[in-house]
Amino acid sequence: MAPNKQGELPGSAKYTGSVPQQEPVITTLCYNTEFVEKFTTLPHPDLAEAKNYQCWSHITPISDEDKIRKICDQLQIHPLVTEDLLTVTHRPKVDEYENYLFIILKSVSHSKSELLFNHHSFILFKNFLLSFSDLPDPFSPVTERINKASGRVRSRNSQYLFFSLADFLLDSYFFVLEKLGEDIEDLENEVLNDPDSNSVAKIHTIKGELIAIRRAVWPMRESINALIRSDFIDEQNRIYFKDLYDHTIEILDTVEGYRDTVSGFLDIYLSILSNRMNEIMKTLSIIATIFIPLSFLTGYFGMNFKYETILQSKEGFFWSNLLIFIIPVIMLVYFKIRKWF
Amino acid sequence: MAPNKQGELPGSAKYTGSVPQQEPVITTLCYNTEFVEKFTTLPHPDLAEAKNYQCWSHITPISDEDKIRKICDQLQIHPLVTEDLLTVTHRPKVDEYENYLFIILKSVSHSKSELLFNHHSFILFKNFLLSFSDLPDPFSPVTERINKASGRVRSRNSQYLFFSLADFLLDSYFFVLEKLGEDIEDLENEVLNDPDSNSVAKIHTIKGELIAIRRAVWPMRESINALIRSDFIDEQNRIYFKDLYDHTIEILDTVEGYRDTVSGFLDIYLSILSNRMNEIMKTLSIIATIFIPLSFLTGYFGMNFKYETILQSKEGFFWSNLLIFIIPVIMLVYFKIRKWF
Amino acid sequence: MAPNKQGELPGSAKYTGSVPQQEPVITTLCYNTEFVEKFTTLPHPDLAEAKNYQCWSHITPISDEDKIRKICDQLQIHPLVTEDLLTVTHRPKVDEYENYLFIILKSVSHSKSELLFNHHSFILFKNFLLSFSDLPDPFSPVTERINKASGRVRSRNSQYLFFSLADFLLDSYFFVLEKLGEDIEDLENEVLNDPDSNSVAKIHTIKGELIAIRRAVWPMRESINALIRSDFIDEQNRIYFKDLYDHTIEILDTVEGYRDTVSGFLDIYLSILSNRMNEIMKTLSIIATIFIPLSFLTGYFGMNFKYETILQSKEGFFWSNLLIFIIPVIMLVYFKIRKWF
Amino acid sequence: MAPNKQGELPGSAKYTGSVPQQEPVITTLCYNTEFVEKFTTLPHPDLAEAKNYQCWSHITPISDEDKIRKICDQLQIHPLVTEDLLTVTHRPKVDEYENYLFIILKSVSHSKSELLFNHHSFILFKNFLLSFSDLPDPFSPVTERINKASGRVRSRNSQYLFFSLADFLLDSYFFVLEKLGEDIEDLENEVLNDPDSNSVAKIHTIKGELIAIRRAVWPMRESINALIRSDFIDEQNRIYFKDLYDHTIEILDTVEGYRDTVSGFLDIYLSILSNRMNEIMKTLSIIATIFIPLSFLTGYFGMNFKYETILQSKEGFFWSNLLIFIIPVIMLVYFKIRKWF
Amino acid sequence: MAPNKQGELPGSAKYTGSVPQQEPVITTLCYNTEFVEKFTTLPHPDLAEAKNYQCWSHITPISDEDKIRKICDQLQIHPLVTEDLLTVTHRPKVDEYENYLFIILKSVSHSKSELLFNHHSFILFKNFLLSFSDLPDPFSPVTERINKASGRVRSRNSQYLFFSLADFLLDSYFFVLEKLGEDIEDLENEVLNDPDSNSVAKIHTIKGELIAIRRAVWPMRESINALIRSDFIDEQNRIYFKDLYDHTIEILDTVEGYRDTVSGFLDIYLSILSNRMNEIMKTLSIIATIFIPLSFLTGYFGMNFKYETILQSKEGFFWSNLLIFIIPVIMLVYFKIRKWF
Repeated sequence: MAPNKQGELPGSAKYTGSVPQQEPVITTLCYNTEFVEKFTTLPHPDLAEAKNYQCWSHITPISDEDKIRKICDQLQIHPLVTEDLLTVTHRPKVDEYENYLFIILKSVSHSKSELLFNHHSFILFKNFLLSFSDLPDPFSPVTERINKASGRVRSRNSQYLFFSLADFLLDSYFFVLEKLGEDIEDLENEVLNDPDSNSVAKIHTIKGELIAIRRAVWPMRESINALIRSDFIDEQNRIYFKDLYDHTIEILDTVEGYRDTVSGFLDIYLSILSNRMNEIMKTLSIIATIFIPLSFLTGYFGMNFKYETILQSKEGFFWSNLLIFIIPVIMLVYFKIRKWF
Repeated sequence: MAPNKQGELPGSAKYTGSVPQQEPVITTLCYNTEFVEKFTTLPHPDLAEAKNYQCWSHITPISDEDKIRKICDQLQIHPLVTEDLLTVTHRPKVDEYENYLFIILKSVSHSKSELLFNHHSFILFKNFLLSFSDLPDPFSPVTERINKASGRVRSRNSQYLFFSLADFLLDSYFFVLEKLGEDIEDLENEVLNDPDSNSVAKIHTIKGELIAIRRAVWPMRESINALIRSDFIDEQNRIYFKDLYDHTIEILDTVEGYRDTVSGFLDIYLSILSNRMNEIMKTLSIIATIFIPLSFLTGYFGMNFKYETILQSKEGFFWSNLLIFIIPVIMLVYFKIRKWF
Repeated sequence: MAPNKQGELPGSAKYTGSVPQQEPVITTLCYNTEFVEKFTTLPHPDLAEAKNYQCWSHITPISDEDKIRKICDQLQIHPLVTEDLLTVTHRPKVDEYENYLFIILKSVSHSKSELLFNHHSFILFKNFLLSFSDLPDPFSPVTERINKASGRVRSRNSQYLFFSLADFLLDSYFFVLEKLGEDIEDLENEVLNDPDSNSVAKIHTIKGELIAIRRAVWPMRESINALIRSDFIDEQNRIYFKDLYDHTIEILDTVEGYRDTVSGFLDIYLSILSNRMNEIMKTLSIIATIFIPLSFLTGYFGMNFKYETILQSKEGFFWSNLLIFIIPVIMLVYFKIRKWF
Repeated sequence: MAPNKQGELPGSAKYTGSVPQQEPVITTLCYNTEFVEKFTTLPHPDLAEAKNYQCWSHITPISDEDKIRKICDQLQIHPLVTEDLLTVTHRPKVDEYENYLFIILKSVSHSKSELLFNHHSFILFKNFLLSFSDLPDPFSPVTERINKASGRVRSRNSQYLFFSLADFLLDSYFFVLEKLGEDIEDLENEVLNDPDSNSVAKIHTIKGELIAIRRAVWPMRESINALIRSDFIDEQNRIYFKDLYDHTIEILDTVEGYRDTVSGFLDIYLSILSNRMNEIMKTLSIIATIFIPLSFLTGYFGMNFKYETILQSKEGFFWSNLLIFIIPVIMLVYFKIRKWF
Repeated sequence: MAPNKQGELPGSAKYTGSVPQQEPVITTLCYNTEFVEKFTTLPHPDLAEAKNYQCWSHITPISDEDKIRKICDQLQIHPLVTEDLLTVTHRPKVDEYENYLFIILKSVSHSKSELLFNHHSFILFKNFLLSFSDLPDPFSPVTERINKASGRVRSRNSQYLFFSLADFLLDSYFFVLEKLGEDIEDLENEVLNDPDSNSVAKIHTIKGELIAIRRAVWPMRESINALIRSDFIDEQNRIYFKDLYDHTIEILDTVEGYRDTVSGFLDIYLSILSNRMNEIMKTLSIIATIFIPLSFLTGYFGMNFKYETILQSKEGFFWSNLLIFIIPVIMLVYFKIRKWF
């Protein structure tokens, strides 16, 4: 959710995350097929203009809003972009500006028993990519690939680089979903075999996590779809963004499947509970129904009436014992016929 | 809901709010980058025509329908607009007329334990904005910004001013949602740990509030989307309305997330209730099932039959005591095996 | 639902309402800004052609299908129109024919504890409106307005007249919804505070009524939307039909809100019922659990064994009394710890 | 569902219905406004070409797949059409071929307590209609109308004839829905007043029937909509297919209304069951709660302790009797206050 | 779900199935109307160019990712295609490349009590079809048809061949659905007549299987729809893909129908459980309510008070016996009136 800011200037950039205020560190990689160089400043605008270089600057953390704003102003980024970039709770989105695309994506990670969503912002110029994040080095495998010139990333432009980073972020969901899939299987076993009151809380937690993933991925799906249709993206790169789109569909599909499964768990839990209750009630009922009349009989023969003459005769004792023996037998037969047990 | 007016003339303006009839007060601000002036009348039509001024008139309250109608007629506002403007329960909407846009928005506030929705109407001319509301000064931070010339509002036209006001109104939802988010977290704790019959009423109340917010914001989302595509809005201002649109999406998204969460609470509550019931029934069953046969035994040995010879012998007393001791032990073992406790 | 007519000629006009067969009465008003005249026949075709008159004929009742068919044939109405016009259960719709529009609308009224939907058909020529209904004078306020020349109706064409009538019909839903809103509030109080088995029937009834209103208004919304986009409607009248459209949206919105509210009632009712059950079971359990062991003890000391020597000693009596006193105390403490009460 | 045919040639025509293999009977009617003639063979191709005749051949039953295939091949029908035509479980659909339309429709009938859906296939040439069905004479009223020259069918082309047949088939749904409507009303009375365990099975059956009707009519709605927009259909006939479309909407609308109603029945049933359970439990609880303490008292005074001196005194008897009388009175007052009865 | 591959190169081909790594076997059929020949290598590129041959190569298994990658590189297949082809959990899809279509389909089979989905990839060139699968010979009836020259497959191009294979794969769903339909009918009987706690697990399993089928077929429906509109497919073959599309609709329709049916089962199960519980509770209540007061009475007359003079008189014994006889009679009458049994 967006921060408390009623009365604030729209477009006023405020950091809303939890990282303490720190000087942002800029890490710039400039590369083409032949060389790669690393800087700790933004690339020269002339460089960015030169066609035969690709540059990627990663800026982290974004907790010092004034510094971040300065960097953005220097690159002539629209103030609304700067605001969204600092609002770490902002939904994923794609905005098309005159000479750059602004993209927000979310990655996910499993910390303890909670899901954490990380906010990643990208500003994609023609041959310059700017990425902002609170995580110090979230894209290390891609950096390594650039350094080692493995894969196609060195021979392609910044759009392909952005695709590589986005692909890497989306992969985090597959990790988390795999873990969730195992949890759901465990929960299914628990619910079907030995549910207790904790099961309900677990169902609730997993449902909440699935909804959270869905809420993060759904706008990414739409954003990537917008990217595919954007004129900004080169024709030959479009196939890669279609691949990303397939990944989001796959994630959402898995989430829907899990939700369908988990939704059924509560019904199963309640029906098993009802069943147990039924069994208990049946046992109680049978025992009570059998012994209550017997207790009445013993009570009857325990009365102290002087004229209760049956108490004096041997036959009385025999017949009453027989009665006490025969009543439960009849009742058990009756219950058996009614299929109570 | 619209007021009782079957048989009324369509387009007949009736105030439907709860503020007592009062003379409307007009507060007009005229400004450009260099100066700002305040009036208590509507701006001169000539002034409104002059390109180098922006004017904003706020009219409050709107309870005196005749006066409001006169003001509207004077500005040649369509009677249907005047009607909608006075109907404080009207849904948010945007209507495009020949030389102005008519917009209804709703703000929200938390009064006691109830949500209040306030009706704000705007008539947006090319460089003149008219706002109507029952609240005396609902936009003070924006007014202040105009007076202090902070932000971009002084250097932009009335569309940007309208954006600033709308942005301010939408922020009220973030406030209320934050409060609701905390309530929902409290409720979740309560439901999971110690639910009582009040919990159901609380779930019901929060659900109702979420539905109310959704019903207010949903048509605003559509209206702002219509604004974005309207020819009336200048190209350079469109990005701001896209930002507003993002805010409405964010609000609706949060509301949906909350609804999903709250929807699960009743299920949890009922399953916890079932669980408790089960526990109580089990305890009752176990105690009853153990003692009912014992009571029968004591009753049996308490009968007054003269020929119940077992009562006369020492061994009889010993064996019956043993029986009374052994029956509950067997039963407890049986229950343990059946996992009743 | 459409009537039994398998095997009937399609386009064969059959009256399906409940009014007994009666000669239809024609009431024609012809007017322009300067005069108004009343006839009991259809207007002369020449008159209808003349540009400076507007005519409106209301025909009621429609129970005499032959007469109605004759009137329609005389005006060269398509047989399918005549059939739909007589089928009083037909859904609201708009059909565009070469030189007229055929429109079906429904009004609603609250009779006793039931909703009644009335069927109104309109045939809208360029400057002639034909209305059919089983109600004798359903539009009296509009008639009066024409007679008194109040409002804009006299100075506008038949499309505006049709708008006035449709607006009037839609207002009936606001009346009924207001009444339903009060019923729902009463029901909410009842369900939250003192639900009984009647509450379920009431919830069911209100739900049914909301569905019925929704089923009547939904196709009207679509029909009016079709009207807005129809070439048949003059540009300057379009704004009025947009207003009608807003009304249908408002009605549907209110209905949806009510349905959401009412849907929650059954859940609340069931959870309150469960709660009560739980309370009852708890009380029963506590009392039974306390007294059942005590009864066993008294039974034990009531046995007639000759060798039950404890019965003979004063200490025995003291200790057993102590036991009888102490057991319930321990149990109550235990229940208190388990938070059973 | 489609038949078992994995490994079969696609387009291989297999009959999947339950009618035993029989020689198909061809009944051909050729007519124009002036005459009508009946044949038992397919019409001459020359005849079909001649503009001033309309021909309609009905072929029944379709259980002899080889004969049917031969007839189709003779008319140069696409093999996929022949396959679909013989698959009596095929969904309703419209396929447009170069010089004919292929249409599948379903009619419904109530046999015993089950719904039967009949498969009707139509091949619609410019002035020749071919209909296939397992029913011997499903369209007798239309045949009669052609013979008697009543209605418009003789003066119109084969499209109007097809409309007449389709209209006739759709009418079968109104019949069945009327019957279902009555069943639902009966069920509503039963559920609200005196539900038993059979009610659940009845709810289940009616729900299933509604779903079955919906599944048959939904694709017909889409097919007829496709027909309306097809170039194959003449402009002047389009209004008739719009009328058919209205009928399908009406059917689906009624089905949805019924489903909404029936869906509520199970909730009502369960809440009434809960209510009854509550009443029973309350009665049991009150009686048990009152008598269990009393039984303890009588047990206490029935102990055989020699030193239980209260048993010897007249006052003891009086006070204990008073206690036995007063305890239930106090309890009843307490229950009354707690509103247990 | 896609495999663990965060940090991997996008487009890096990894096999994700369960077949142990094996050399892929290539089976190529080249045919036209006059001859058919079988190879164990890929067809010569020249051959593929020649218009008068159709070739189909089936490659199985795909577990050796390096070999598969080599084959794909040799045919200049895009690396993203190779990746998707090896990801046996990938959703069905159609991707259009410059000179081929890439299609993923799923077939289903019933192994023990589990559904297995098999991954089939197709690369469709103008007159060359490449199919990949882990199953050794999944299309034997089609192969046979080619060898025997039965049906149209020999006289048509590779698109028709692909249609034949896809049609064959889709047929597997009809088999499985038929089996499921029988299971559902059995389950319905069980649930309505004699449900036990296993029924819930069965409902859950069937629901899961239906969801799994839906998840496999839904994207196939969309893919085939994309094929129909693709320029790649010849006009005369489009009708065949429409037929495939109809089949997917049919499958999804059946699945939806089954889901609706199965969804109702849990409600029925729970209401039957409630009913049984009610019956048990009623019996218990009646017996307890009758005997508890009687037991009190016998207890009362079993007290040892010396001054309980009623015990000494013959009339006392008579009247108390009468009381003991009359109380249950009154109660049974009362219960009968309240319709408890």
